[in-house]
Amino acid sequence: MIDWIGYIAAIITTGSFIPQTVKTIKTRDTSGISFYMYFFFLIGIALWFVYGIMLDAWPIILANGLTMISSSIILFYKIRNMKRGEE
Amino acid sequence: MIDWIGYIAAIITTGSFIPQTVKTIKTRDTSGISFYMYFFFLIGIALWFVYGIMLDAWPIILANGLTMISSSIILFYKIRNMKRGEE
Repeated sequence: MIDWIGYIAAIITTGSFIPQTVKTIKTRDTSGISFYMYFFFLIGIALWFVYGIMLDAWPIILANGLTMISSSIILFYKIRNMKRGEE
Repeated sequence: MIDWIGYIAAIITTGSFIPQTVKTIKTRDTSGISFYMYFFFLIGIALWFVYGIMLDAWPIILANGLTMISSSIILFYKIRNMKRGEE
Protein backbone atom coordinates (compact mmCIF):
# COMPACT_ATOMS: atom_id res chain seq x y z
CA MET A 1 0.00 0.00 0.00
CA ILE A 2 2.75 2.46 0.98
CA ASP A 3 4.76 1.44 -2.09
CA TRP A 4 1.77 2.09 -4.32
CA ILE A 5 1.40 5.63 -3.01
CA GLY A 6 5.08 6.14 -3.92
CA TYR A 7 4.59 4.75 -7.44
CA ILE A 8 1.48 6.86 -8.07
CA ALA A 9 3.27 9.94 -6.69
CA ALA A 10 6.25 9.26 -9.01
CA ILE A 11 4.01 8.85 -12.06
CA ILE A 12 2.03 12.05 -11.33
CA THR A 13 5.05 14.28 -10.57
CA THR A 14 6.95 12.95 -13.61
CA GLY A 15 3.88 13.26 -15.85
CA SER A 16 3.14 16.79 -14.66
CA PHE A 17 6.12 18.05 -16.69
CA ILE A 18 4.54 16.84 -19.94
CA PRO A 19 1.96 19.70 -20.24
CA GLN A 20 4.68 22.26 -19.41
CA THR A 21 7.01 20.80 -22.05
CA VAL A 22 4.25 20.71 -24.69
CA LYS A 23 3.23 24.30 -23.85
CA THR A 24 6.83 25.54 -24.06
CA ILE A 25 7.47 23.79 -27.40
CA LYS A 26 4.18 25.09 -28.86
CA THR A 27 4.24 28.69 -27.63
CA ARG A 28 8.04 29.12 -27.11
CA ASP A 29 6.96 31.52 -24.37
CA THR A 30 9.42 31.23 -21.49
CA SER A 31 9.14 34.78 -20.13
CA GLY A 32 7.53 33.67 -16.86
CA ILE A 33 9.85 30.69 -16.43
CA SER A 34 12.87 30.97 -14.15
CA PHE A 35 16.23 30.01 -15.67
CA TYR A 36 17.67 29.33 -12.21
CA MET A 37 14.82 26.99 -11.31
CA TYR A 38 15.43 24.71 -14.31
CA PHE A 39 19.22 25.03 -14.07
CA PHE A 40 19.30 23.83 -10.45
CA PHE A 41 16.37 21.46 -10.91
CA LEU A 42 18.26 19.66 -13.68
CA ILE A 43 21.34 19.26 -11.47
CA GLY A 44 19.16 17.95 -8.63
CA ILE A 45 17.28 15.54 -10.88
CA ALA A 46 20.60 14.25 -12.29
CA LEU A 47 21.71 13.53 -8.72
CA TRP A 48 18.43 11.68 -8.02
CA PHE A 49 19.13 9.67 -11.18
CA VAL A 50 22.63 8.70 -9.91
CA TYR A 51 21.11 7.93 -6.49
CA GLY A 52 18.59 5.61 -8.17
CA ILE A 53 21.34 3.81 -10.11
CA MET A 54 23.37 3.33 -6.91
CA LEU A 55 20.35 1.88 -5.12
CA ASP A 56 19.29 -0.07 -8.21
CA ALA A 57 15.85 1.50 -7.72
CA TRP A 58 14.09 1.51 -11.07
CA PRO A 59 11.19 3.81 -10.15
CA ILE A 60 13.73 6.51 -9.16
CA ILE A 61 15.86 5.90 -12.28
CA LEU A 62 12.88 6.01 -14.66
CA ALA A 63 11.05 8.95 -13.06
CA ASN A 64 14.18 11.11 -12.95
CA GLY A 65 15.46 10.00 -16.35
CA LEU A 66 12.18 11.12 -17.95
CA THR A 67 12.10 14.37 -15.97
CA MET A 68 15.68 15.08 -17.11
CA ILE A 69 14.47 14.93 -20.70
CA SER A 70 11.43 17.19 -20.21
CA SER A 71 13.21 19.78 -18.08
CA SER A 72 16.17 19.85 -20.52
CA ILE A 73 13.75 20.77 -23.32
CA ILE A 74 12.22 23.60 -21.23
CA LEU A 75 15.70 24.88 -20.25
CA PHE A 76 16.83 24.73 -23.89
CA TYR A 77 14.00 27.06 -24.98
CA LYS A 78 14.62 29.34 -22.01
CA ILE A 79 18.33 29.71 -22.86
CA ARG A 80 17.56 30.21 -26.56
CA ASN A 81 15.16 33.05 -25.74
CA MET A 82 17.69 34.60 -23.36
CA LYS A 83 20.45 34.44 -25.98
CA ARG A 84 18.19 36.10 -28.52
CA GLY A 85 17.83 38.92 -26.06
CA GLU A 86 14.06 38.46 -25.97
CA GLU A 87 14.07 38.21 -22.19
CA MET B 1 27.76 8.15 0.71
CA ILE B 2 24.65 7.07 -1.19
CA ASP B 3 22.45 8.71 1.46
CA TRP B 4 24.36 11.96 1.06
CA ILE B 5 23.71 12.05 -2.66
CA GLY B 6 20.01 11.66 -1.84
CA TYR B 7 20.08 14.49 0.71
CA ILE B 8 21.95 16.83 -1.63
CA ALA B 9 19.55 15.94 -4.46
CA ALA B 10 16.57 16.67 -2.19
CA ILE B 11 17.99 20.05 -1.10
CA ILE B 12 18.78 21.12 -4.69
CA THR B 13 15.44 20.05 -6.24
CA THR B 14 13.49 21.62 -3.35
CA GLY B 15 15.58 24.80 -3.44
CA SER B 16 15.24 25.14 -7.22
CA PHE B 17 11.62 26.21 -6.75
CA ILE B 18 12.68 29.27 -4.74
CA PRO B 19 13.90 31.37 -7.74
CA GLN B 20 10.74 30.44 -9.67
CA THR B 21 8.51 31.46 -6.75
CA VAL B 22 10.39 34.75 -6.25
CA LYS B 23 10.22 35.50 -9.99
CA THR B 24 6.48 34.77 -10.14
CA ILE B 25 5.72 36.94 -7.07
CA LYS B 26 7.86 39.81 -8.40
CA THR B 27 6.81 39.83 -12.06
CA ARG B 28 3.37 38.14 -11.73
CA ASP B 29 4.12 36.86 -15.23
CA THR B 30 2.72 33.35 -15.57
CA SER B 31 2.03 33.36 -19.32
CA GLY B 32 4.66 30.71 -20.07
CA ILE B 33 3.74 28.58 -17.06
CA SER B 34 1.49 25.57 -17.51
CA PHE B 35 -1.56 25.39 -15.22
CA TYR B 36 -1.77 21.62 -15.70
CA MET B 37 1.85 21.13 -14.71
CA TYR B 38 1.41 22.82 -11.32
CA PHE B 39 -2.06 21.33 -10.79
CA PHE B 40 -0.83 17.76 -11.21
CA PHE B 41 2.57 18.48 -9.65
CA LEU B 42 0.85 19.67 -6.47
CA ILE B 43 -1.25 16.48 -6.28
CA GLY B 44 1.89 14.36 -6.83
CA ILE B 45 3.90 16.29 -4.24
CA ALA B 46 1.05 15.91 -1.72
CA LEU B 47 1.18 12.15 -2.31
CA TRP B 48 4.98 12.14 -1.76
CA PHE B 49 4.30 14.02 1.48
CA VAL B 50 1.83 11.34 2.65
CA TYR B 51 4.30 8.65 1.54
CA GLY B 52 7.00 10.31 3.65
CA ILE B 53 4.71 10.43 6.70
CA MET B 54 3.84 6.75 6.29
CA LEU B 55 7.54 5.82 6.09
CA ASP B 56 8.43 8.32 8.82
CA ALA B 57 11.08 9.63 6.40
CA TRP B 58 11.84 13.22 7.37
CA PRO B 59 13.84 14.19 4.25
CA ILE B 60 10.80 13.24 2.10
CA ILE B 61 8.36 15.01 4.45
CA LEU B 62 10.41 18.22 4.61
CA ALA B 63 11.37 18.41 0.93
CA ASN B 64 7.81 17.84 -0.26
CA GLY B 65 6.24 20.01 2.44
CA LEU B 66 8.38 22.96 1.32
CA THR B 67 7.75 22.27 -2.38
CA MET B 68 3.99 22.17 -1.67
CA ILE B 69 4.25 25.74 -0.34
CA SER B 70 6.30 27.11 -3.27
CA SER B 71 4.28 25.41 -5.99
CA SER B 72 1.00 26.50 -4.33
CA ILE B 73 2.15 30.12 -4.57
CA ILE B 74 3.02 29.71 -8.28
CA LEU B 75 -0.33 27.99 -8.96
CA PHE B 76 -2.19 30.74 -7.06
CA TYR B 77 -0.75 33.44 -9.35
CA LYS B 78 -1.41 31.32 -12.43
CA ILE B 79 -5.09 30.84 -11.51
CA ARG B 80 -5.47 34.54 -10.60
CA ASN B 81 -4.13 35.57 -14.02
CA MET B 82 -6.38 33.03 -15.76
CA LYS B 83 -9.46 34.31 -13.85
CA ARG B 84 -8.66 37.88 -14.83
CA GLY B 85 -8.71 36.71 -18.41
CA GLU B 86 -5.16 37.86 -18.95
CA GLU B 87 -4.13 34.48 -20.31
